[in-house]
Amino acid sequence: MRFDLNILGCSGAVPAYGRFPTMQLLNVQERLYMIDCGEGAQIRFSDFNVKWGKLSHIFISHHHGDHVLGLPGLLSSMGLNHRTAPLLVFGPPKVGQFLEQACAFTKHLSFPVHFHEVDPALHKVVFENKALEVYTLPLRHSVPATGYLFREKERPRSMRGEQIERYNIPYTAIPDIKAGADFLSPDHGNVPNEVLTLPPPRSRSFAFCSDTAYEESLLSYIYGVDLLYHESTFLQKHHGQALETGHSTVQEAAMMARNADVRTLVLGHYSTRYPVLDRVLQEAIPIFPNTILGSDGLIVPLMLNP
Amino acid sequence: MRFDLNILGCSGAVPAYGRFPTMQLLNVQERLYMIDCGEGAQIRFSDFNVKWGKLSHIFISHHHGDHVLGLPGLLSSMGLNHRTAPLLVFGPPKVGQFLEQACAFTKHLSFPVHFHEVDPALHKVVFENKALEVYTLPLRHSVPATGYLFREKERPRSMRGEQIERYNIPYTAIPDIKAGADFLSPDHGNVPNEVLTLPPPRSRSFAFCSDTAYEESLLSYIYGVDLLYHESTFLQKHHGQALETGHSTVQEAAMMARNADVRTLVLGHYSTRYPVLDRVLQEAIPIFPNTILGSDGLIVPLMLNP
Repeated sequence: MRFDLNILGCSGAVPAYGRFPTMQLLNVQERLYMIDCGEGAQIRFSDFNVKWGKLSHIFISHHHGDHVLGLPGLLSSMGLNHRTAPLLVFGPPKVGQFLEQACAFTKHLSFPVHFHEVDPALHKVVFENKALEVYTLPLRHSVPATGYLFREKERPRSMRGEQIERYNIPYTAIPDIKAGADFLSPDHGNVPNEVLTLPPPRSRSFAFCSDTAYEESLLSYIYGVDLLYHESTFLQKHHGQALETGHSTVQEAAMMARNADVRTLVLGHYSTRYPVLDRVLQEAIPIFPNTILGSDGLIVPLMLNP
Repeated sequence: MRFDLNILGCSGAVPAYGRFPTMQLLNVQERLYMIDCGEGAQIRFSDFNVKWGKLSHIFISHHHGDHVLGLPGLLSSMGLNHRTAPLLVFGPPKVGQFLEQACAFTKHLSFPVHFHEVDPALHKVVFENKALEVYTLPLRHSVPATGYLFREKERPRSMRGEQIERYNIPYTAIPDIKAGADFLSPDHGNVPNEVLTLPPPRSRSFAFCSDTAYEESLLSYIYGVDLLYHESTFLQKHHGQALETGHSTVQEAAMMARNADVRTLVLGHYSTRYPVLDRVLQEAIPIFPNTILGSDGLIVPLMLNP
């Protein structure tokens, strides 16, 4: 029951110091959901031994090059690897235009690519399957940009094995009990559901917020998530540049984590001004102690019952 | 007086094993000429500390993704670095279309990008400056593709310092003498040019041939070059795939080097079938001993008088 974030690239606009542009993978029960697709995505897939076949959905925040330029190469190489399964790409309208050009240029793809346009001004569910719901998060950047919130669906309660025997429960009754029903026993009368089942593990959640300035309205959408990735392009001494470019400082990212009462914060999208990142962590920790410095290759596993 | 080839990426179509797609830099007297621009070019610039400002010309062989997908990111990041100097890109017509799309997507570039269309069916000079002439080389691939031949222009003869004093030569006469003139001395009569000057160093040359099947007609164009880069996508056991896809085997690359009597052969564009490349070198050496296995980061300096 994995729910792991894998950061493939943590650089800001210009890659440097071994840091690739923004791209992340969320592994939910061995299916991969990609978030942003910076240049060199297929190279990072190779570097970190990512299984291409497990990827079927890509969520793009906005159309800036450092978040989309890995798409053409990734698609093309999936084609050369004889992929046939469809690929679904989510993003604001201009991402669709970019994707269309990329697909037109990379002719004869061996698999279908579908684009699902999202409205970056709204907070709404844009995807769901048995395991997961994905919501958009309206960000505030120099161009329309959306974050994404990944939330596990609540699982059914699980049967307590010893009670099946004790109350002589037929297997045909189990699905209803798992769904919350009591059991009417010939010998014991009504047995309440809480006696027969265990509560499901907590649903895990991950919010991706990049690129964005500090945006107060995000707080209610991401309140209490297990893991928050929030961009932190600039140190405090460059907060003027953050304002100008629609990015956040490290302190703002940490404030967002604190104010939204999240469990863990992961930083990233570092400016090329900072070859070494110790100062980044030093500015975050006093505001939000449970902060992780994002790095290329980092894996953050979220436990079922932490 | 540098004339160095620097390989930034040596992979075939799909990057793997730390090998980036095709891209090379030729440093001629501290000006950089880029040849092909695979995905991750700007990342390799950072990895190998390439000075962006020295680059003003990019020569593209054909429009396949593994030879062009680095262009949008490279252009965009040059813009973010406030470049103002124009950039000139050479390539077959479809490269121009790709470049146009890339520039339209990456708005507000801070510098002009000019496209110079070349005819991949012809062998002709497409660029020259004081130091260099660049010729196209008609390749044989699945789409129109051109190689490039870089040849230093012949330098003037150099004065023998001791003769200036001996024959009492005024400095105003030196440019003519360097250009080949004799000197009429009041005391010694006509002094032949060979007495006064030393021959210039040999002109150095580099031929880039990728992607291509073995193409006999190249021999006359690249005959005797100092350095030949010839793609070698496949080992002999996969020669059927080479035929199908318009690529060369290692043995064909080595035969090209031997038959064109070049000094040194550099191999590259390796298929993902080969994580380790020892067999590649083993297949080349018996045919052409002076073979170098191209690798990401390799620098091959050509000496003035080897």
